Amino acid sequence: MFKYRLLTPGPTPVPEDTLLELARPVPHHRTAEARQILADVVEGLRYVFQTRGDVIPLTCSGTGAMEAALIHAVPRGAKALCLVAGKFGERWHQIWRTYGVESVAITAPPGQVVTPAMVETALRQHPDAQAVCVVHCETSTGVKHDLKALGELVAQTDAVLLVDAVSSAGAMELRMDDWHIDFLATGSQKALMLPPGLAFVAVSDKGWRAAQRHQPPAFYFDLKKARDKIREHDTPFTPAHTLLRALRRSLEKIRTEGIEAVWWRHARLAHACRAAVQALGLELFATVPAESLTAVRVPAQLDGQEILRRLEKDYGIKLAGGQDQLKGKILRIAHMGYIDFFDLLAAIAALELVLRDLGFDVPAGRGVAAAQRAFAEFHCSSGSSN
Amino acid sequence: MFKYRLLTPGPTPVPEDTLLELARPVPHHRTAEARQILADVVEGLRYVFQTRGDVIPLTCSGTGAMEAALIHAVPRGAKALCLVAGKFGERWHQIWRTYGVESVAITAPPGQVVTPAMVETALRQHPDAQAVCVVHCETSTGVKHDLKALGELVAQTDAVLLVDAVSSAGAMELRMDDWHIDFLATGSQKALMLPPGLAFVAVSDKGWRAAQRHQPPAFYFDLKKARDKIREHDTPFTPAHTLLRALRRSLEKIRTEGIEAVWWRHARLAHACRAAVQALGLELFATVPAESLTAVRVPAQLDGQEILRRLEKDYGIKLAGGQDQLKGKILRIAHMGYIDFFDLLAAIAALELVLRDLGFDVPAGRGVAAAQRAFAEFHCSSGSSN
Repeated sequence: MFKYRLLTPGPTPVPEDTLLELARPVPHHRTAEARQILADVVEGLRYVFQTRGDVIPLTCSGTGAMEAALIHAVPRGAKALCLVAGKFGERWHQIWRTYGVESVAITAPPGQVVTPAMVETALRQHPDAQAVCVVHCETSTGVKHDLKALGELVAQTDAVLLVDAVSSAGAMELRMDDWHIDFLATGSQKALMLPPGLAFVAVSDKGWRAAQRHQPPAFYFDLKKARDKIREHDTPFTPAHTLLRALRRSLEKIRTEGIEAVWWRHARLAHACRAAVQALGLELFATVPAESLTAVRVPAQLDGQEILRRLEKDYGIKLAGGQDQLKGKILRIAHMGYIDFFDLLAAIAALELVLRDLGFDVPAGRGVAAAQRAFAEFHCSSGSSN
Repeated sequence: MFKYRLLTPGPTPVPEDTLLELARPVPHHRTAEARQILADVVEGLRYVFQTRGDVIPLTCSGTGAMEAALIHAVPRGAKALCLVAGKFGERWHQIWRTYGVESVAITAPPGQVVTPAMVETALRQHPDAQAVCVVHCETSTGVKHDLKALGELVAQTDAVLLVDAVSSAGAMELRMDDWHIDFLATGSQKALMLPPGLAFVAVSDKGWRAAQRHQPPAFYFDLKKARDKIREHDTPFTPAHTLLRALRRSLEKIRTEGIEAVWWRHARLAHACRAAVQALGLELFATVPAESLTAVRVPAQLDGQEILRRLEKDYGIKLAGGQDQLKGKILRIAHMGYIDFFDLLAAIAALELVLRDLGFDVPAGRGVAAAQRAFAEFHCSSGSSN
């Protein structure tokens, strides 16, 4: 008997008491209590994003929230820069093109990042760019972009900065106001410890000024209309309000722990995971790895799909593989949200067992020992984000 | 002590075992089991809509699903007819205008319907109209449009027929294929007995041919991309998959009871509710009332807001009032989805008590007796829809 353990980079496990909230009877959505829940959720998300700006809950996936942000940032016919270091950067680039925006891709090979220097050059080459879009944690490859440096760069221009924080918000250091982020989008099913169904957009004053210059070519994703309702603790359309009620509970956990402690905990898990997989003789795929997940290169002699299959079937461990052209070539181990060190240790142990089962030469115990050592010693290391 | 009873036209109560599904641990969303759930849900919805066409689950509200349908039906610059008999008809008219469609409103005063004859005239006046949009059950006023007759009219033209079935699907007789409906949208939080968070669009072959003629001006709501994924039992973006799993359970209930029996049950509840409120001396607001809810005119000498407040505070009964210009002027009693006759009887009893508390002259027991009589005698009446 092995328990089922979900360590995929979304959906992620949901705390048991949050799940029980979802089983409570359905209330009406236009009541004083519903307004209070919405107000609490918005306050909780402001804290997670470290912003004093507007936060708008939407009933959709993270892609819907990013689409809402993208169509408010610039009008049809405008030019924008899009950092593309994987599947999600590519998606935002496509969305802009769908809406007639001239999106200029600044591309990094899979596993690598787009550097601030590359963006600086692009901003010089395209002084008419009205927006820059970046994925904080590129979930498809496990890389992390340097938001702080990018924020400083873009703040010196008239362009707005859009950030996909879908798999970073609530896990990785993220300071929307201090880092000059204008549009930030995330989803409910990653580090916010909720099932999928909700997504959120936060907008800065500079972001709203950009949005004021044109009418959004959409109705459901009209953020200005939503903002005016949210400020009165209401929503323009029926929200997934039982998910909002449950989210309040998950957000309370983050508030109680403290957001910097949450970031530090994720950095510690990432540190342990990286040490463990390297001790197993595997290579990290990301040159600048994120704290939400660790992407690992599958050794040439092994079949990545078979590793995943055995992890799940033999040991109850659900990891993710690569997507599209990375299928079979990488494994992705999530350590965000409601995944603790002992869950991670279980995943490392299972990976070690599967590698041995497949004839990969690794001494039993090397991975878990390395994880344990890295975890134990992290508190005195300088790898912390605060 | 009075229990809390929700009789609003969305959100509606959710069966206890469906709620418990929502409390189950979160699985991954790209697995054989998740594909089976999606396939079962699509099959279940096909049955509810009575169609053999594609059904596409979306993570959004009913408005999002209607927007998706509207932008696929006609391109920017085209002309469309929109039946407006209340708030929701007005909303679809607005969405089309947001997208540069010349939407011609065919309007009925609040409480009345747009008749097939009015639509026939409009189709003659606007032979270039490429689409006709109608709300089956206009939730804001409680009226029902004659979809069968409208379907026959529109089928004789090249225009496509779009139907907002948000508060009718799963409650009122609805035969997508037989009635020549091309786009049908609904949400999860009405008669489908689920919390809000999911919505659905069904599309006919004629609908797809119309959609093929232009690119939809959207990404998240791109139904053609979604259709290709759904046919492989997959979704383009992370769906609210725990809601899908729970929906399967609610759909099983409908399948077990049989869709015609479900329609008949709702017609019976509507019949009992109408008889009861009229016995209380109140007037029906809708000239052609729907089976999902009953809208009742508030007597001039009473305050509708106060009635609602007392119903909830004194007796635990949550009804809805009027929206916008109908606020305080009507009460809306829902009897759709997971609301049974005894819930309705409780609502009638509470309404009777509140009316008496407010000094409205009504003999105690008249409303509940009328409801009971109408309910008991309905099986031999001809009011059934089948």
